[in-house]
Amino acid sequence: PEESLIRIDRPGIATGLAWTPAGGDVLQVEAAAMPAAEERLILTGQLGDVMRESVQAALTWVRSNAAKLGIDPGFFEHKAVHVHVPAGAVPKDGPSAGITMATALVSLASGRPVRSDVAMTGEITLHGRVLPVGGIKEKVLAAHRAGIRTVILPKENERDTEDVPEEARKDLRFVFVTDAEEVMREALG
Amino acid sequence: PEESLIRIDRPGIATGLAWTPAGGDVLQVEAAAMPAAEERLILTGQLGDVMRESVQAALTWVRSNAAKLGIDPGFFEHKAVHVHVPAGAVPKDGPSAGITMATALVSLASGRPVRSDVAMTGEITLHGRVLPVGGIKEKVLAAHRAGIRTVILPKENERDTEDVPEEARKDLRFVFVTDAEEVMREALG
Amino acid sequence: PEESLIRIDRPGIATGLAWTPAGGDVLQVEAAAMPAAEERLILTGQLGDVMRESVQAALTWVRSNAAKLGIDPGFFEHKAVHVHVPAGAVPKDGPSAGITMATALVSLASGRPVRSDVAMTGEITLHGRVLPVGGIKEKVLAAHRAGIRTVILPKENERDTEDVPEEARKDLRFVFVTDAEEVMREALG
Amino acid sequence: PEESLIRIDRPGIATGLAWTPAGGDVLQVEAAAMPAAEERLILTGQLGDVMRESVQAALTWVRSNAAKLGIDPGFFEHKAVHVHVPAGAVPKDGPSAGITMATALVSLASGRPVRSDVAMTGEITLHGRVLPVGGIKEKVLAAHRAGIRTVILPKENERDTEDVPEEARKDLRFVFVTDAEEVMREALG
Amino acid sequence: PEESLIRIDRPGIATGLAWTPAGGDVLQVEAAAMPAAEERLILTGQLGDVMRESVQAALTWVRSNAAKLGIDPGFFEHKAVHVHVPAGAVPKDGPSAGITMATALVSLASGRPVRSDVAMTGEITLHGRVLPVGGIKEKVLAAHRAGIRTVILPKENERDTEDVPEEARKDLRFVFVTDAEEVMREALG
Amino acid sequence: PEESLIRIDRPGIATGLAWTPAGGDVLQVEAAAMPAAEERLILTGQLGDVMRESVQAALTWVRSNAAKLGIDPGFFEHKAVHVHVPAGAVPKDGPSAGITMATALVSLASGRPVRSDVAMTGEITLHGRVLPVGGIKEKVLAAHRAGIRTVILPKENERDTEDVPEEARKDLRFVFVTDAEEVMREALG
Ligand SMILES: [Ca+2]
Ligand SMILES: [Ca+2]
Ligand SMILES: [Ca+2]
Ligand SMILES: [Ca+2]
Ligand SMILES: [Ca+2]
Ligand SMILES: [Ca+2]
Ligand SMILES: [Ca+2]
Ligand SMILES: [Ca+2]
Ligand SMILES: [Ca+2]
Ligand SMILES: [Ca+2]
Ligand SMILES: [Ca+2]
Ligand SMILES: [Ca+2]
Repeated sequence: PEESLIRIDRPGIATGLAWTPAGGDVLQVEAAAMPAAEERLILTGQLGDVMRESVQAALTWVRSNAAKLGIDPGFFEHKAVHVHVPAGAVPKDGPSAGITMATALVSLASGRPVRSDVAMTGEITLHGRVLPVGGIKEKVLAAHRAGIRTVILPKENERDTEDVPEEARKDLRFVFVTDAEEVMREALG
Repeated sequence: PEESLIRIDRPGIATGLAWTPAGGDVLQVEAAAMPAAEERLILTGQLGDVMRESVQAALTWVRSNAAKLGIDPGFFEHKAVHVHVPAGAVPKDGPSAGITMATALVSLASGRPVRSDVAMTGEITLHGRVLPVGGIKEKVLAAHRAGIRTVILPKENERDTEDVPEEARKDLRFVFVTDAEEVMREALG
Repeated sequence: PEESLIRIDRPGIATGLAWTPAGGDVLQVEAAAMPAAEERLILTGQLGDVMRESVQAALTWVRSNAAKLGIDPGFFEHKAVHVHVPAGAVPKDGPSAGITMATALVSLASGRPVRSDVAMTGEITLHGRVLPVGGIKEKVLAAHRAGIRTVILPKENERDTEDVPEEARKDLRFVFVTDAEEVMREALG
Repeated sequence: PEESLIRIDRPGIATGLAWTPAGGDVLQVEAAAMPAAEERLILTGQLGDVMRESVQAALTWVRSNAAKLGIDPGFFEHKAVHVHVPAGAVPKDGPSAGITMATALVSLASGRPVRSDVAMTGEITLHGRVLPVGGIKEKVLAAHRAGIRTVILPKENERDTEDVPEEARKDLRFVFVTDAEEVMREALG
Repeated sequence: PEESLIRIDRPGIATGLAWTPAGGDVLQVEAAAMPAAEERLILTGQLGDVMRESVQAALTWVRSNAAKLGIDPGFFEHKAVHVHVPAGAVPKDGPSAGITMATALVSLASGRPVRSDVAMTGEITLHGRVLPVGGIKEKVLAAHRAGIRTVILPKENERDTEDVPEEARKDLRFVFVTDAEEVMREALG
Repeated sequence: PEESLIRIDRPGIATGLAWTPAGGDVLQVEAAAMPAAEERLILTGQLGDVMRESVQAALTWVRSNAAKLGIDPGFFEHKAVHVHVPAGAVPKDGPSAGITMATALVSLASGRPVRSDVAMTGEITLHGRVLPVGGIKEKVLAAHRAGIRTVILPKENERDTEDVPEEARKDLRFVFVTDAEEVMREALG
């Protein structure tokens, strides 16, 4: 069951929501860092090219806003950053995990774990704008099945939550955002 | 609506005009920089090879004309420069975002935000010549829909503005340029 | 016979279980390290892209948990790490050798040989969670044929061991795990 | 009109002649250089592999003959050299721009602009030999249309100029060369 | 005739046995090393990916067992190692040259030439185990034709030598091995 | 005419013989070197993978036999070595230019020009053995047409010269070699 996935007991993990042909699903983004002579970004979990670019954009946003985010601006220097999305054999793609990637990275760098009852979806741009994504209904239902209490969504997807059945909506709190900083305040609360 | 795209509140963002099979569109180019042991250029947003080369040309023009542009000649050294064009999953190509790329980079390096009411299109060469591009009518109409007031275009496209309906033309100011320095003076005013 | 494979007389070797179209099989993961100006990971044995990512995830888990695992945090710095899975001409893929990779690497770094009578299968995530895998029945039978006494499996695969014939089960001890640290305690005992 | 292309007002630009299925054309090669930790050659303008190799050969000839060419032997060290051939979206290939590439690079390194009324075509070898190329008639006519006065050609193409109509020939001066040093003396005069 | 191949008069050459569609063949593996800022492995002779990985495994085994093999542990540091297998235009693949690669590398590093009358075949693993290979009969006959006196084979291939005609067997000495160290003792005797 | 190719007036050029579907041809191999932070080998002239490997083998032979060849062992360190084979647009492949590559490199490093009246063909191995090649008759005829006086060939190709018409043979001196050092003595005489 999904519940086994969403216990978060250490920094560097964030819970995202994915759309698959079989419906919505909960996925966890894991980030770690190691000392390295050459800075580089290691991406695993069979990530497609759009998702790989999405991690790059998230990382640049985190690095170029370190001060504002309360993290050490030098944290990512001389480090190899590794982002993994289990399950390892399942291909994944698309930009909608952008804010989840950013959250996992800020959690890692700040040492603050993400709240276990929070899940999210949304594209991130280099300057932290949060852009709308698809599959909101299916994603929210997956979050509900997994016992999530707070779902962070792009402001431009607000109307899409009207399609979510009342049964799920009554158990959930929605937070609509236009900027990735709002995501951090909510998720790392 | 497009308006949500064109608020510019920080350096490193410039508004371009794109031609798509569905008509003209407004796009924003985002640039950021991070300290890096190895200088490199990170390009995201599903950019095709012509557009990737276009960013390279824009960056070289900026770097080799730093003094004239009033930016620190050392700004780009020991840095990773990241240029992203949302939306992340939409493929983009062609040379016509060249001057927009250059503007985002000069804005980033100078710390001066680009004027929010300015949009532009035009190919850039390594020495800053501005070459003509296609789709002028559709691009100008997209700028108009987005509330843009000033549109910067290549001098060699001047005649193409005659095809723009009077309704749009009366709300817009056109600036025709042959050299990228003129773009900077207008956009970073 | 498989027995020739499973004598382990030095650090850096761990015994995994693989599923092949022809049934289960025992395989050995070999790890070695050399001084290197540039840190890098060399992967040989015709490993597919999912398995290659799996070694990356295992290595990052080991490196970012060095202290907890009782190994020198600097062991992997300035080293080329080489992981090989014989036989060299047989293509291999999938995430299920993840904990075996991690075990070989921890054994290498700690200088403690893996117990010869232990075999294992299970996906590893960047933070050491152990995820379920397929082919449990065939893999356990292969372990039995090879004279293995202890089989380490993901907790979420516990029910799959019910399909293993009693004849094999009575000779084997099963250890079910959710975290890779439990694997290390058992295998490097 | 082509005339807009051939004003040359700074070092690093040289005018070449290209053959296209639609006839001859004038093209400009632009070269620039930037400080760089790692020396590298950046090639843009949708250059095919033969043309890319041609730039490499031109650059090596320039670098290994710096003293003889009156340029600083250290000019290209610790630099990224960028060669661009507009228009950015038009694929280009073949070895015939070799001497034009060399001329743009020597102009860049010496700070001496190329003469605006000179155009050229010819393959270059690593040791500066100038080899014959095709499409002489069409290229010369394009030069004539563009207002060029001096056309530099490989000595082995001398007989091909007989095919050029008298009307064009009477306005042009031909310089036939076997060695790239002769090109420099003529173009950078 | 093959005899011309098997005179070995300097360190870094070892004689292997290959199976081809046309029968067995003798091949020589050549190794050399050069000072290099970046350590790397250069592989030439149209080697397929399995054979390339095989050289990597052999090199790691040699490097991580340098002391035991009586070679300078620093020999391979700051060096480019080049392994070539003539003839240059003939594609070659498979893991069976593993111990031949290891022997050429140990010979190179130790300065001790390989015995000219010794040939060998066998896969090597990262920890020096010698695994069985195919084509034993054809390979042994090729060795015999080439005037070889001692043939080193994997222990697990011992039974395959029964297929070798008595006429060849009576001229040959077979050495069966399970570990690459035994190969070195025999070949570098 | 071919004669224009074979004047050699500086170090780093050697004359080879090629077989093409249209018959034999004379080609010139050009080598140059430049200071470089990272050692590397630049290969141009549309060289196929076998010919590229052939240059690598030649370079390693030269570097690891520098002392014996009377060249500075440090000549190739901290240098980019560039080997070019005109004409730039003609694809070339095969191992038969190996000794020509080696000769151009030794000429470059020693500063001694190759004799203009010498041409050669033959595969080289990493340890300088010279292996036989094809197309001897056509290659020798091409050398004769080009005014070559001395043709260096692999010893194992000696019998193939019987197919060369007496008319050509009477004007030529053949030198048959088994080792690349003999080539150097003849060509750099
Ligand atoms: Ca799931
Ligand atoms: Ca894709
Ligand atoms: Ca839009
Ligand atoms: Ca393209
Ligand atoms: Ca087996
Ligand atoms: Ca795959
Ligand atoms: Ca034109
Ligand atoms: Ca091509
Ligand atoms: Ca043979
Ligand atoms: Ca293969
Ligand atoms: Ca010719
Ligand atoms: Ca090939």
